[in-house]
Amino acid sequence: MHRTKVRIVEDALDANNTIARANRDDFDRSEVTVLNLMSAPGAGKTSLLERVLAELPEGVRIGVLEGDVQGSYDSDRLATLHVPVVQLNTDPGFGGECHLDANMVRSALPALPLADIDLLVIENVGNLVCPAEFRVGEHARAMVCSVAEGEDKPLKYPLMFRACELVIVNKLDLLPHVDVDLERLLYHIDAVNPGVRTLLASARTGEGVGELRDWLHELAARKVTAGT
Amino acid sequence: MHRTKVRIVEDALDANNTIARANRDDFDRSEVTVLNLMSAPGAGKTSLLERVLAELPEGVRIGVLEGDVQGSYDSDRLATLHVPVVQLNTDPGFGGECHLDANMVRSALPALPLADIDLLVIENVGNLVCPAEFRVGEHARAMVCSVAEGEDKPLKYPLMFRACELVIVNKLDLLPHVDVDLERLLYHIDAVNPGVRTLLASARTGEGVGELRDWLHELAARKVTAGT
Repeated sequence: MHRTKVRIVEDALDANNTIARANRDDFDRSEVTVLNLMSAPGAGKTSLLERVLAELPEGVRIGVLEGDVQGSYDSDRLATLHVPVVQLNTDPGFGGECHLDANMVRSALPALPLADIDLLVIENVGNLVCPAEFRVGEHARAMVCSVAEGEDKPLKYPLMFRACELVIVNKLDLLPHVDVDLERLLYHIDAVNPGVRTLLASARTGEGVGELRDWLHELAARKVTAGT
Repeated sequence: MHRTKVRIVEDALDANNTIARANRDDFDRSEVTVLNLMSAPGAGKTSLLERVLAELPEGVRIGVLEGDVQGSYDSDRLATLHVPVVQLNTDPGFGGECHLDANMVRSALPALPLADIDLLVIENVGNLVCPAEFRVGEHARAMVCSVAEGEDKPLKYPLMFRACELVIVNKLDLLPHVDVDLERLLYHIDAVNPGVRTLLASARTGEGVGELRDWLHELAARKVTAGT
């Protein structure tokens, strides 16, 4: 029975990868770079995006695909910043999927003005496990890790930390108020994903927001160059 | 294809419920009350348990089943408190399951000294979605919600908040340092689960730990009475 379960999961991942490749082809044709942005619930993905989008990188047109179990709280927040935002809810199929998959993202493509976007940020459902297992057609993956979550999270959820090329350590302003050693947290991140780029940030104080904006700019440029 | 997926999920949940009932029967026979304790990653489940277990409730013998994707960081922490702790890892089957299911818990039963336990606390994998969907044979469900996660979490993950009879609002010491209105957070909790009991706590300062200990005491008594 255990074997059957693994088989079903593998089949589901196979199907997911096929659809993810189709999404990727569509993104490449439209010369859109796609970032899959992940984190635990409440780590600050939306708040960081709000800060970044408030001062858009010069010449980079950003769109956002918001993934949530239900509701449109985050997309409502981002819509005030005058960027194209499409909300995707994972609850219709079941009690609520804990991650976005390639088919869900595919269903949102017709609603996205791909021709008018250079960089599409897909804000995944808040979860440190399954979102790392399902590709959605993205070119890059980044995660936000709040210092309030504790310094042991890279060790407990290593796949997520390994799946990303950038780890944004957020809520740095809370460091004096939590029992977390930043050096040890960074050491743990590097232990599970040696050499991975990290970015220290605080959506509250604005620390690191400029660096994140620069990184998104480079990411968009990376794709536009590859696409020509 | 979507319909097939729902069907597979429903079959999996059916099988899970059957095994959960078998677990529940075993717990009842041993007169053990079981609490399924859930939260997002880093909300403070283990830290609260450490505080509670450091001064055990009079006459209540507690055991802990630790659920993690991998590693034994939390069970190592709790083992120093001289309570029976069994570690359950969800990663062997796949990249890592994002929740405990009834069969995983069943596989741990032989390692648990049920005859010497009044209250078994099952610390689930950190995740606000799937753990609420899979019963494991528990008598009660509680969750920990950190104020650092933001006041919108009940609205974004309502199933989890609805599935629990107690919501522990933790990290209260961080309130002065985060942009969260406690009244609004409590209002949102009550909106998705009207009348649910809430408990304000801080594992760091010890606030609410006595109340949590009392609640666990009542929980254990509830079962012992029902079992006689």
